[in-house]
Amino acid sequence: MPQNKQIHLANRPVGEAVASNFKLVVAETPPLKDGEVLVRQHYFSLDPYMRGRMNDAKSYALPQALGETMGGGSVGEIAESRNAAYPVGAKVVCAGGWQEYCVVSPDPAQMRMLRIVDTTHIPLSAYLGAVGMPGVTAWYGLVKICEPKAGETMLVSAATGAVGSAFAALSKARGLRTVGIAGGPEKCKYATDELGFDACIDYKLHSTAGSLAKAIREACPQGVDGYFENVGGMVLDAVLMNMNAFGRIAVCGMIAGYDGAPLPLSHPALILVNRLKVQGFIVGEHMEIWPEALKELGTLVATGKLRARESIAQGIEAAPEAFLGLLKGKNFGKQLVKLI
Amino acid sequence: MPQNKQIHLANRPVGEAVASNFKLVVAETPPLKDGEVLVRQHYFSLDPYMRGRMNDAKSYALPQALGETMGGGSVGEIAESRNAAYPVGAKVVCAGGWQEYCVVSPDPAQMRMLRIVDTTHIPLSAYLGAVGMPGVTAWYGLVKICEPKAGETMLVSAATGAVGSAFAALSKARGLRTVGIAGGPEKCKYATDELGFDACIDYKLHSTAGSLAKAIREACPQGVDGYFENVGGMVLDAVLMNMNAFGRIAVCGMIAGYDGAPLPLSHPALILVNRLKVQGFIVGEHMEIWPEALKELGTLVATGKLRARESIAQGIEAAPEAFLGLLKGKNFGKQLVKLI
Repeated sequence: MPQNKQIHLANRPVGEAVASNFKLVVAETPPLKDGEVLVRQHYFSLDPYMRGRMNDAKSYALPQALGETMGGGSVGEIAESRNAAYPVGAKVVCAGGWQEYCVVSPDPAQMRMLRIVDTTHIPLSAYLGAVGMPGVTAWYGLVKICEPKAGETMLVSAATGAVGSAFAALSKARGLRTVGIAGGPEKCKYATDELGFDACIDYKLHSTAGSLAKAIREACPQGVDGYFENVGGMVLDAVLMNMNAFGRIAVCGMIAGYDGAPLPLSHPALILVNRLKVQGFIVGEHMEIWPEALKELGTLVATGKLRARESIAQGIEAAPEAFLGLLKGKNFGKQLVKLI
Repeated sequence: MPQNKQIHLANRPVGEAVASNFKLVVAETPPLKDGEVLVRQHYFSLDPYMRGRMNDAKSYALPQALGETMGGGSVGEIAESRNAAYPVGAKVVCAGGWQEYCVVSPDPAQMRMLRIVDTTHIPLSAYLGAVGMPGVTAWYGLVKICEPKAGETMLVSAATGAVGSAFAALSKARGLRTVGIAGGPEKCKYATDELGFDACIDYKLHSTAGSLAKAIREACPQGVDGYFENVGGMVLDAVLMNMNAFGRIAVCGMIAGYDGAPLPLSHPALILVNRLKVQGFIVGEHMEIWPEALKELGTLVATGKLRARESIAQGIEAAPEAFLGLLKGKNFGKQLVKLI
């Protein structure tokens, strides 16, 4: 049985998450029981939502248990199998979390997370990004909450991340004016040159919501009809000042408030003044739309219309630092940890 | 031609609205032209939205013009007529604003606001409250935004106001647990004894959102599924802590922030955590639902199931003080000015 390095949650953050919240543990992979498979993970995913689970607070997901492997999405191949449906060598998506190997039992709740994927036209890692949870998240927010109509303007924050880049491709495929918000000139240039955004605003050039709001107004001369919110804080305040009447805001993340004090929304009365719909969602609760969304996203990737960038940390030991960087926006595109 | 006392907006508030923002003017009613009618107003309505129109700020309605009669809903009878469709003596709803008489021209935009009503089973003043804009506002928020399901809990702030009392009757008619928030023991007792609320919380007993949140939790042991927001500020913060997953919030007013500084929303991330839908609306933009809503509201009033209280100020000179009191919650039920 191979050795299996894992990252456990050792203790919960007080304020900002730090490297010492995590602990590297070397375990043995256990012998397989009947029906089980062993997945050798090629990549696991680092996502902002994991920060929320590190707190022991009421949220939409159970808190990450202390002393256990950090959870999350992963991709790999079947290394050993006692289950005829999963032959050795098959490429799979699973939910193995921050470790090198994972064992999946025949329990239906576990097997539902294990899915053989075709890597002929789509790279394996894309199933953690554009053709995975982040891509479907962008699809749901755009199609089901922003509900764009012809001629409208769509805006997304964290524009060059896994969700933002998928949002851009989906929005442009519908012929909409598509504007991003990102941090720094390099990301903004990448957003317009590579991801197809019509414009991208560098929020780091602005220290107040009013100044950022003015920049948004210049990039969205017709106002904003749909906004996909990944960050919260000052960015949300600035966007609210630019929403058109009957605008829709899909609230997917508030990464700016994940560490430390919650960030208030300065002018909630704008929700009334502009008759906005502001709706939070978690894509894992809408499994019925995944097939349709994955089909569109897979086609966009396979045809080269969605070429999402990845930030790849090498080796499991690099995971905590990469994760902490993700929370500060240091990644550029989908943040992955590569294991082999 | 009779004399016509009017209240004009003399100047715009700086911070809190004050009596000197208004000016009493005595005008003459002009001779009628062909197609016109003269309405002798019995009551005009005072509503919180009028405070927003006193500012010269972008909002859903045009600002109230300076030096002109304050706008708003009214009821009365046809005093003179050069229009066969409106015989003298007919009782009407119109939009005459803060004055004793109004002239309605045959312009379709004006005539659309003039409607003959039946006062056999419904008192004329109710057409400004339960069977008028406030009632339809409650109906839209409950039916179209809160979208209640059997067994759910609905909550409304400003519970004993015109909107809140209609909300209670509509919610109870659907068999829902219905809880109110109001200011002071007298209003809370009235809410449960007369308006049919299952419970009513006195927000004046609480100085922090956390304390108020605890009181809401006790009154809503199953959590809150639908909330009708009339006030904003600390109350909204406290309610947000009690919303169930997939809860709906209809944002109708933020009266707490109408004067002076805008009130922030402390924990917008709860919209995501609880996957809430928060939606602002203005009922005048949804004319298609008025007939259905007015039919239900009229039946509730005619059968005694909705007996909304009125605060009546006597005479046009009393209007400014009554309006400023409304903004501070001094009214008890629908605030009207009675003219004859």
